[in-house]
Amino acid sequence: MNCNLAVIKGDGIGPEIVTEAMRVLDAVGEKYGHTFSYTQILMGGASIDVHGEPLTEEALEIAKKSDAVLMGSIGGNTSTSPWYKLPAQLRPEAGLLKLRKSLGLFANIRPAYLYDELKKACPLRDEVIGDGFDMVIMRELTGGLYFGERHTEEIDGVRTAVDTLSYNENEIRRIAIKAFDIARKRKKHVISVDKANVLDSSRLWRTVVEEVAKDYEDVTYEHMLVDNCAMQLVNNPRQFDVILTENMFGDILSDEASMITGSIGMLSSASLAEGKFGLYEPSHGSAPDIAGQDIANPIATILSAAMMLRYSFDLDKEADEIEKAVKAVLADGYRTVDIMSDGMKKVGCKEMGQLIIDQI
Amino acid sequence: MNCNLAVIKGDGIGPEIVTEAMRVLDAVGEKYGHTFSYTQILMGGASIDVHGEPLTEEALEIAKKSDAVLMGSIGGNTSTSPWYKLPAQLRPEAGLLKLRKSLGLFANIRPAYLYDELKKACPLRDEVIGDGFDMVIMRELTGGLYFGERHTEEIDGVRTAVDTLSYNENEIRRIAIKAFDIARKRKKHVISVDKANVLDSSRLWRTVVEEVAKDYEDVTYEHMLVDNCAMQLVNNPRQFDVILTENMFGDILSDEASMITGSIGMLSSASLAEGKFGLYEPSHGSAPDIAGQDIANPIATILSAAMMLRYSFDLDKEADEIEKAVKAVLADGYRTVDIMSDGMKKVGCKEMGQLIIDQI
Ligand SMILES: CC(C)[C@H](C(=O)O)[C@@H](O)C(=O)O
Ligand SMILES: CC(C)[C@H](C(=O)O)[C@@H](O)C(=O)O
Repeated sequence: MNCNLAVIKGDGIGPEIVTEAMRVLDAVGEKYGHTFSYTQILMGGASIDVHGEPLTEEALEIAKKSDAVLMGSIGGNTSTSPWYKLPAQLRPEAGLLKLRKSLGLFANIRPAYLYDELKKACPLRDEVIGDGFDMVIMRELTGGLYFGERHTEEIDGVRTAVDTLSYNENEIRRIAIKAFDIARKRKKHVISVDKANVLDSSRLWRTVVEEVAKDYEDVTYEHMLVDNCAMQLVNNPRQFDVILTENMFGDILSDEASMITGSIGMLSSASLAEGKFGLYEPSHGSAPDIAGQDIANPIATILSAAMMLRYSFDLDKEADEIEKAVKAVLADGYRTVDIMSDGMKKVGCKEMGQLIIDQI
Repeated sequence: MNCNLAVIKGDGIGPEIVTEAMRVLDAVGEKYGHTFSYTQILMGGASIDVHGEPLTEEALEIAKKSDAVLMGSIGGNTSTSPWYKLPAQLRPEAGLLKLRKSLGLFANIRPAYLYDELKKACPLRDEVIGDGFDMVIMRELTGGLYFGERHTEEIDGVRTAVDTLSYNENEIRRIAIKAFDIARKRKKHVISVDKANVLDSSRLWRTVVEEVAKDYEDVTYEHMLVDNCAMQLVNNPRQFDVILTENMFGDILSDEASMITGSIGMLSSASLAEGKFGLYEPSHGSAPDIAGQDIANPIATILSAAMMLRYSFDLDKEADEIEKAVKAVLADGYRTVDIMSDGMKKVGCKEMGQLIIDQI
């Protein structure tokens, strides 16, 4: 198979971790007879530095023509980086939002699970963890507060800012379908999260989710209020299989869920469009403070590449191979500094990548 | 002193826990020569059952004329209670929102701290807890998505729902001032939480917080993105002193913060207007599943009454007395079921109230 990838190395640790993911892909390609061709494009701070804007039309066109996008991470330190002196629409994040919208990446899938080997890094007590947890957050990614009308104006001399949270039934339905589809392949349980006791958009969300649920008699579901969900993630993460929610709630809850695993450097993510197209990136950020030191953990990005093989190219066997290689390296006791614990062998970014390649 | 209180016992466990708080107030009144007069009003489900609406104008008028409002908790099980078959504006929560807005209760203060005696109930590991944490969440309560324009309509046959998130500089300034004032009496550090990389309202929030901060040279502050804050609460709760944030983010983060203490049955809350007026209620909900069994924990409500003495009546000594009484009862090993652990003495709601009274 010939896979034509657009690659956004991004900012901070992005270039280091993406490089390792590309090397892993090449190793898999060699073993199974696939070719990955990479076209690098700039986005975020790296693009601002070169073009004065976070995503050019040319870069966007290349992404559109690709079969899938592999991404590192973008953005810098919001207090110290000069990128954050720019007007909002020229900052690194604006490029990411434009990319998501232009590519129609409405379904953000973020798995959050406890690695048995990394249990000690989990901030929750053993009693809370029990025999582990394994959930997927399905976040709507191209609607809601992120893409509504917004403006700031002076009304009678008083500065006033307005953002709009809007959803229509089609936007809700397509993400709900994705959530129920994924639940079907897992433990068959969806928890749809909203704030239906306050928001109209949440009440419509609930209605449409109930309509969709009718087509999935084998999947159980419940509604949960967002404030309660923020509590339940800490209190009893084992109750979750698939969490379905809108854009802003998903931003908050998926980060909370990542953190309770204690190993955010291990968590991948996929942002999917209709059809097979998707963008794949680690769940963590660009960690500018440790960039360029060859100490970042490339595993989240490598596992994101595995997700890409699975979702965009139906290469399940090859994805399994990467996931197994990662598990084997962990079982052998190798750790990057973020997941290091007593008695383990500390390795850098490149070495971790190589160890995984050696398993393939 | 003569304190004229409006009392909303509310739904679920509300009546039981408020009764104990009133008994504690009376005991303090007797000891220090204050009179508490109570006018009970209905709100939430209890009001729906009698009047067909969650808050009548008469009840609201009584609340307005009082010196302060003491409240239990409102609402029922959203899946099974008939209250949730009603249109949104007739449900229990609508009464609470109307009350908040009509009374101008713009500043919601929710302390979240670890009780040394209840460390074992904390879901976080000992290494994360360290020597404990102690924070206050200052949540804006009468603006943002909760009170913006909203509507649901069909556009070309497609159901569409819209909510509006709006803030003006005055709304932001007055809550920021409250946060910096409180920080000054504590560890002098404010973390202001927003989503300034996406929302106009958050960018205005940041600007105004920075303006306010100029008047508090003795208080340090930083900005934090809401998704990061949701992570940091789990990862390192000790870094927080005062968290300042808007209504919806505050709803989510304050519940998360309550839960990481592991003893939400102990956490009070105050909702303040300009001046001395305020509404005081426990941070937890109405727990309909355990209502009427005399097993609910009244401490959060009793401590909310203490907050009332402090904030609305400047009765600091009396508030201290209640807080000390609660600590003493815990130190003696008495626990309601929600905070029970091995070797402790289990007591019911009434008995817990009485034990606290006995200390006064
Ligand atoms: C960078 C930011 C705009 C983005 C978001 O809020 O969606 C990030 O937090 C994420 O979750 O991918
Ligand atoms: C009942 C509900 C409307 C309310 C809110 O969201 O403000 C509650 O969750 C709270 O935090 O007091």
